[in-house]
Amino acid sequence: MVYLDYAATGVMLPEVVEAMREAELEFFANPSALHTPAHLAMNEIEKVREKLAKMINAEPEEIIFTSGATESNNTVIRTFERHEIETSPLEHHSILETAKIFRGEKKPKLYSYMFANNETGELLDIKTLIEKAHTEGGYFHSDLTQAFGKVPIDVKELGLDYATISAHKIGGPVGIGALYVKKGALFKPLLVGGNQEKGRRGGTYNTAAIIGLGAAIDEIFKKRASSEYDTRVRALRDELARRILEEVKGSSLNTDLSPDKSLPNILNVSFRAAEGEAIQLYLDAEGIIVSTGSACAAGDGKPSHVLMAKTGDAEIAHSSIRFSFGVSNTKDDVEKVMEVLPGIIDKLQKMSTIEV
Amino acid sequence: MVYLDYAATGVMLPEVVEAMREAELEFFANPSALHTPAHLAMNEIEKVREKLAKMINAEPEEIIFTSGATESNNTVIRTFERHEIETSPLEHHSILETAKIFRGEKKPKLYSYMFANNETGELLDIKTLIEKAHTEGGYFHSDLTQAFGKVPIDVKELGLDYATISAHKIGGPVGIGALYVKKGALFKPLLVGGNQEKGRRGGTYNTAAIIGLGAAIDEIFKKRASSEYDTRVRALRDELARRILEEVKGSSLNTDLSPDKSLPNILNVSFRAAEGEAIQLYLDAEGIIVSTGSACAAGDGKPSHVLMAKTGDAEIAHSSIRFSFGVSNTKDDVEKVMEVLPGIIDKLQKMSTIEV
Repeated sequence: MVYLDYAATGVMLPEVVEAMREAELEFFANPSALHTPAHLAMNEIEKVREKLAKMINAEPEEIIFTSGATESNNTVIRTFERHEIETSPLEHHSILETAKIFRGEKKPKLYSYMFANNETGELLDIKTLIEKAHTEGGYFHSDLTQAFGKVPIDVKELGLDYATISAHKIGGPVGIGALYVKKGALFKPLLVGGNQEKGRRGGTYNTAAIIGLGAAIDEIFKKRASSEYDTRVRALRDELARRILEEVKGSSLNTDLSPDKSLPNILNVSFRAAEGEAIQLYLDAEGIIVSTGSACAAGDGKPSHVLMAKTGDAEIAHSSIRFSFGVSNTKDDVEKVMEVLPGIIDKLQKMSTIEV
Repeated sequence: MVYLDYAATGVMLPEVVEAMREAELEFFANPSALHTPAHLAMNEIEKVREKLAKMINAEPEEIIFTSGATESNNTVIRTFERHEIETSPLEHHSILETAKIFRGEKKPKLYSYMFANNETGELLDIKTLIEKAHTEGGYFHSDLTQAFGKVPIDVKELGLDYATISAHKIGGPVGIGALYVKKGALFKPLLVGGNQEKGRRGGTYNTAAIIGLGAAIDEIFKKRASSEYDTRVRALRDELARRILEEVKGSSLNTDLSPDKSLPNILNVSFRAAEGEAIQLYLDAEGIIVSTGSACAAGDGKPSHVLMAKTGDAEIAHSSIRFSFGVSNTKDDVEKVMEVLPGIIDKLQKMSTIEV
């Protein structure tokens, strides 16, 4: 199998699987209790909180662990339940759908923009957007789900007020994420219950998953130190893009490959007169795993809301494929894709009434 | 270590640890995607959904997976945001605190009562409460966190409209739970995002944790078939109660041991003139792990709100210890507790100004 759907979820790193297995056996106690096994578990949680804070240049007390990016996003949006919320049509549904429900008029306003788009990998000009939001007296939230661990992020330098973090996009476990809340920023808990997370998020601490996130962060620190991830993954992505443009008729990139314009690991391509879901299924039959866009919206039959917003062209949006790379990929994977992709596209284009 | 804090969280069953490790490697894909690895993951999720539904006699489509009991509880309470909510002072904080925020006047009313209390193990007369709620045109929610897997529960026979389920209290993983929503009952999603759970709960499916929950359910089915859990755990609990009453001065039970009055695994005891947290710490120093009540409320310095509501006696509430048993416990554990407990209580009582 050639797995190129890392933006939907990463393959869990072996280091993470092992760290979690150990944690499940060793740090099983409920960390909120007052006994020794609880303290031991809580110590491990606090170590990960420090690690995560360090990675984005935040203070540990500005990090709240959640069940994942959707919960983090929902928490911020609900905090601004009766405020005005500004966002872009490129956002993930966990922002768009929640913001739809809650649109008020009271100040201060919340601005919510993702750091990097999940379908195209596009890096937004967050710094400028944040400056604008602050000039207007608002708060700024960024969904870092795709960007975290792929590009360096400094919340202090950027001036972010809120940031959403997911573990499973970086080889960590599903079901754990975090929310960065700048000291002093408005905050209303979404999950209410016990005193966990200093009353900011109820629910039993998920020690093993938090430790798994910590192990994934460790691997990022190692790879970043050697620039391995960025250089290697980017080279594979760029090589696939170059070969597709050369060898596949009617192909056009929806991702700008310049280093400051996109994440290193995502490549979104449209194939004129070939339907995205059909391409995906033919590739699947060959053991090549890609997606047409966001897994969260998969199967709803609609063209990508992101590509529609960017291009206004339903044909482009309907014929797109997202290739997303990760640590397990090699040059051989690119080779395997290129062995079958031109033939699949050619077949589909011949079946189509649209001219290429 | 003698672990007697199963009501806070269970020791993860080895079968669960192994099932999760395998799932993390094999079913890692995002189940919402359209490719083969996604379908394989989704199949596993649906198998667990059926298993869980069967266990409480629900339909699979009435089960929504969540991040745990707190999220399930919050989801139900928020659904009735502008309705009247009736609950008891014995409930968990994830019910009490959320219900405090949302108290409206509009019908239909929500009744929320836990099936079994988490501090005393007391089984409520749910059937009568449900009948009353339905007679009055309301909906009924029960938090099954402590009861699920410990006593048989039939949602159809009881007529429950909503039920909260947690995995980690039965030896499953933390970070996964479920909400039973009767077909046709009012429902408003709490976590909004993608189309997961048929639009009822956004967020990437936590496949490995769901499979872990399934493995824990398998173990319950096995044990229930042999009545092993109930008979063995109940015998240990009752033996400890008997010996405490006989050998420890000033002890009184807060748990009614009759089979129809309490869960088989929880024993709550008060020790006159001895402070609960002090007892817990002394036991901890001897490697015996118990709690004074709910881990979620631990460390807040207040007496148990459950025992206060039941007895109105701050002395009883302040001097209570919860022993909660699970699959790993043996007669030897009871022996070890009784080797040190009388001495600890005697020492604390001698330090107290209250007469025993």
